[in-house]
Amino acid sequence: MLCSSSPPSGLLEKVFQYIDLHQDEFVQTLKEWVAIESDSVQPVPRLRQELFRMMTLTADKLRHLGAGVESVDLGSQQMPDGQSLPIPPIILAELGNDPKKPTVCFYGHLDVQPAQKDDGWLTDPYTLTEVDGKLYGRGATDNKGPVLAWINAVGAFRALKQDLPVNIKFILEGMEEAGSVALEELIRREKDHFFSSVDYIVISDNLWISQKKPALTYGTRGNCYFMVEVKCRDQDFHSGTFGGILNEPMADLVALLGSLVDSSGHILIPGIYDQMAPLTEEEKTMYRNTDLDLEEYQKSSQVEKFLFDTKEELLMHLWRYPSLSIHGIEGAFDEPGTKTVIPGRVIGKFSIRLVPHMNLSVVEKQVKQHLEAVFTKRNSFNKMAVSMVLGLHPWTANINDSQYLAAKRAIKTVFGVDPDMIQDGSTIPIAKLFQDITQKSVMMLPLGAVDDGEHSQNEKINRWNYIQGSKLFAAFFLELSKLHS
Amino acid sequence: MLCSSSPPSGLLEKVFQYIDLHQDEFVQTLKEWVAIESDSVQPVPRLRQELFRMMTLTADKLRHLGAGVESVDLGSQQMPDGQSLPIPPIILAELGNDPKKPTVCFYGHLDVQPAQKDDGWLTDPYTLTEVDGKLYGRGATDNKGPVLAWINAVGAFRALKQDLPVNIKFILEGMEEAGSVALEELIRREKDHFFSSVDYIVISDNLWISQKKPALTYGTRGNCYFMVEVKCRDQDFHSGTFGGILNEPMADLVALLGSLVDSSGHILIPGIYDQMAPLTEEEKTMYRNTDLDLEEYQKSSQVEKFLFDTKEELLMHLWRYPSLSIHGIEGAFDEPGTKTVIPGRVIGKFSIRLVPHMNLSVVEKQVKQHLEAVFTKRNSFNKMAVSMVLGLHPWTANINDSQYLAAKRAIKTVFGVDPDMIQDGSTIPIAKLFQDITQKSVMMLPLGAVDDGEHSQNEKINRWNYIQGSKLFAAFFLELSKLHS
Repeated sequence: MLCSSSPPSGLLEKVFQYIDLHQDEFVQTLKEWVAIESDSVQPVPRLRQELFRMMTLTADKLRHLGAGVESVDLGSQQMPDGQSLPIPPIILAELGNDPKKPTVCFYGHLDVQPAQKDDGWLTDPYTLTEVDGKLYGRGATDNKGPVLAWINAVGAFRALKQDLPVNIKFILEGMEEAGSVALEELIRREKDHFFSSVDYIVISDNLWISQKKPALTYGTRGNCYFMVEVKCRDQDFHSGTFGGILNEPMADLVALLGSLVDSSGHILIPGIYDQMAPLTEEEKTMYRNTDLDLEEYQKSSQVEKFLFDTKEELLMHLWRYPSLSIHGIEGAFDEPGTKTVIPGRVIGKFSIRLVPHMNLSVVEKQVKQHLEAVFTKRNSFNKMAVSMVLGLHPWTANINDSQYLAAKRAIKTVFGVDPDMIQDGSTIPIAKLFQDITQKSVMMLPLGAVDDGEHSQNEKINRWNYIQGSKLFAAFFLELSKLHS
Repeated sequence: MLCSSSPPSGLLEKVFQYIDLHQDEFVQTLKEWVAIESDSVQPVPRLRQELFRMMTLTADKLRHLGAGVESVDLGSQQMPDGQSLPIPPIILAELGNDPKKPTVCFYGHLDVQPAQKDDGWLTDPYTLTEVDGKLYGRGATDNKGPVLAWINAVGAFRALKQDLPVNIKFILEGMEEAGSVALEELIRREKDHFFSSVDYIVISDNLWISQKKPALTYGTRGNCYFMVEVKCRDQDFHSGTFGGILNEPMADLVALLGSLVDSSGHILIPGIYDQMAPLTEEEKTMYRNTDLDLEEYQKSSQVEKFLFDTKEELLMHLWRYPSLSIHGIEGAFDEPGTKTVIPGRVIGKFSIRLVPHMNLSVVEKQVKQHLEAVFTKRNSFNKMAVSMVLGLHPWTANINDSQYLAAKRAIKTVFGVDPDMIQDGSTIPIAKLFQDITQKSVMMLPLGAVDDGEHSQNEKINRWNYIQGSKLFAAFFLELSKLHS
């Protein structure tokens, strides 16, 4: 564990002691939260009920802290298959409204990606399990752990009967992994109400680039998610009875998906790189200064070899170049075994991570034109339909805002080091949303280590990160208050 | 309904009357059989139990007919993932051993392909449901209906206390859809025992080429099933955190699968057509004489357009040319929704339908060499592994055998027409197995109509086909006996 470089103030020391003394209790609460299968990705009524349960539990927790809590009802959403599913409420909460203090609003999400034991988890994904200081469970790092760390920090001040150095607001949602349905509308509606008194917005929904060294994030890539359907008929075929006389939808789809990206990761869609912001010398310097041990990163990622051999190239391909990933196929044979089926209708799924200054509707047009051209060349009798089902902008912040300075100081106090100034290859669309709509300063202050495995099997958060994270947030409140006074 | 061209004999007339009078009872028995989820494809203990239940029910039914029944224990099989699953027994049964009569052995299978309501079934796949004379249910036509039709025919003679014109044997298995595990070994073992007295082997496990006109089948394609695994690591990745710096396994796999077949159905694996038997003039004539309305076939198959415009080309591509179908991918994202995952390890599944005189081990070598060449060119850091997990030979019979003549006459009696002499594009490996090992005459006598949809959603057998099929088998017994005397 790293030591603090300068001793914390008397109050902060007390808060740190409180957090250390109560760490088992904090882990227990995280365990209760992880136990709820709040999966927003699979559109299933049972899981939506779990999401509602998660939101209610959280609202109660915030009320217990003394916050004023509103659970905003968001109605329901119509799924492509016609079913209607209720959307979990968004929680708006506030604690303190002293006009002399800065007001910082914390955004977090309580939904998770799908997880099943037999996906390859070593422990039950919904039973938080500690092994060697690592807390394994779905949502442990994305994003239940960080949300609780913030609550723990606030709770420590309250438990010690200490005045909070800042006014605190919360906006917590349950649909982040499914594209933050209805969030944008709510932010717009609350722009001049809930957000009018907010000075800073903090998001803690990404990871460090290191296993040990903290980071501050000032940019994220966007994402646009495509579905390409190829259909011969609704029913499947027997491959003996029809094999040889059909344009098989899987053959068409594989050709379409195979036309998207080459083996070096280069996207083959014409024009896709045209809008990308030019690379500056200043940027190059920043990449050079970022602390990343490429071999160590490769090893900790359990990857034989990345596509690039230098730290700078790697970071640029994660942060400032677009990437295209093929996620899978719906409608084909996906079970173990040897089914001899010709799927009648298949949907390929892929997405493109966007960087400044790529424009969503231009990318959508380029992708559709490209796929239509490839499909036309095949002279297939099947029907193809392409749709962009999610479109999320990239985001970049001004790293000279006060809260970035406060966060740097808090990191120095708690971890004894200066943070890596990083971007994030993944998409946290609300960063961009908050920035665009509220015009407030938005910062991402991650707690999780690079090997936490969000979205993957065996997701975890280190107990150390979770507990030090609570301290970091407490220190951040004080630094921000000092900068304001 | 078509009329008989020549009136059946007095005995046969009685049998036909009996069958017509008892048709609801026969449908009820089929309903009980369909209700058992005897899925051999998914290697799951619960389904294996259902298979055992199916075999026990059938053995009891045959005992009730007066047959001597042996259920041959086949031990268990080791799955690739290490689990051990019990293999359902094979039923050997016999009824009559008069040396003056010919002995005909009926092969059938009682296992089915996987089916779930939400695959797109309009009714529950395991509840036989009659709509407009069509009996919908998994296994209705493949192969529970035809097995029961044979039992119904035998049962009609027994119920009328009439001497059976032939000695009857049964060999019924429960692993056909999973590659007839252990069947070959049993046939070899019983070659000089159970099969020594057998003159003819009848299989009724395929379909007519028409909705109304019966057929006799003298050949089937083989099949070899391949799995190609591409692995980066066991865990999945987040496409934001790793997109752009990895050789993504899905991109590799899509390129591999895309290299197999072109959009006109032509297989791109070098050398694959070299071993194929040359096309003869005699063959061409046979295709020309086959009764197939291409437009009607297209329509009933709900296909916009087949790859070929003439009947002859279509039949040749179904029967005498190999075909390659891509079935699906295991390990990628296959659910509804928008998961932003980079699958860490994926398995592509495809199979090639083989025709005379393609050799399994040559094809295996060609496929592996081709995929290895494509993969090498990609310079990917992932690992690729190709395996042929099923290999089944094609089969052709001598259509001048007595049982083909008897069957033609029986078809004329029951349906009033000469049958289409056809081959089958799908693989019924035991035709080849029986022929090679027992050296007996093997015939395929299908009952199902072309639109029955075996292996697909909404599989059905027409009530008419099922009931007339029972009569056809009864008439076949008499014709075979006449030819022998």
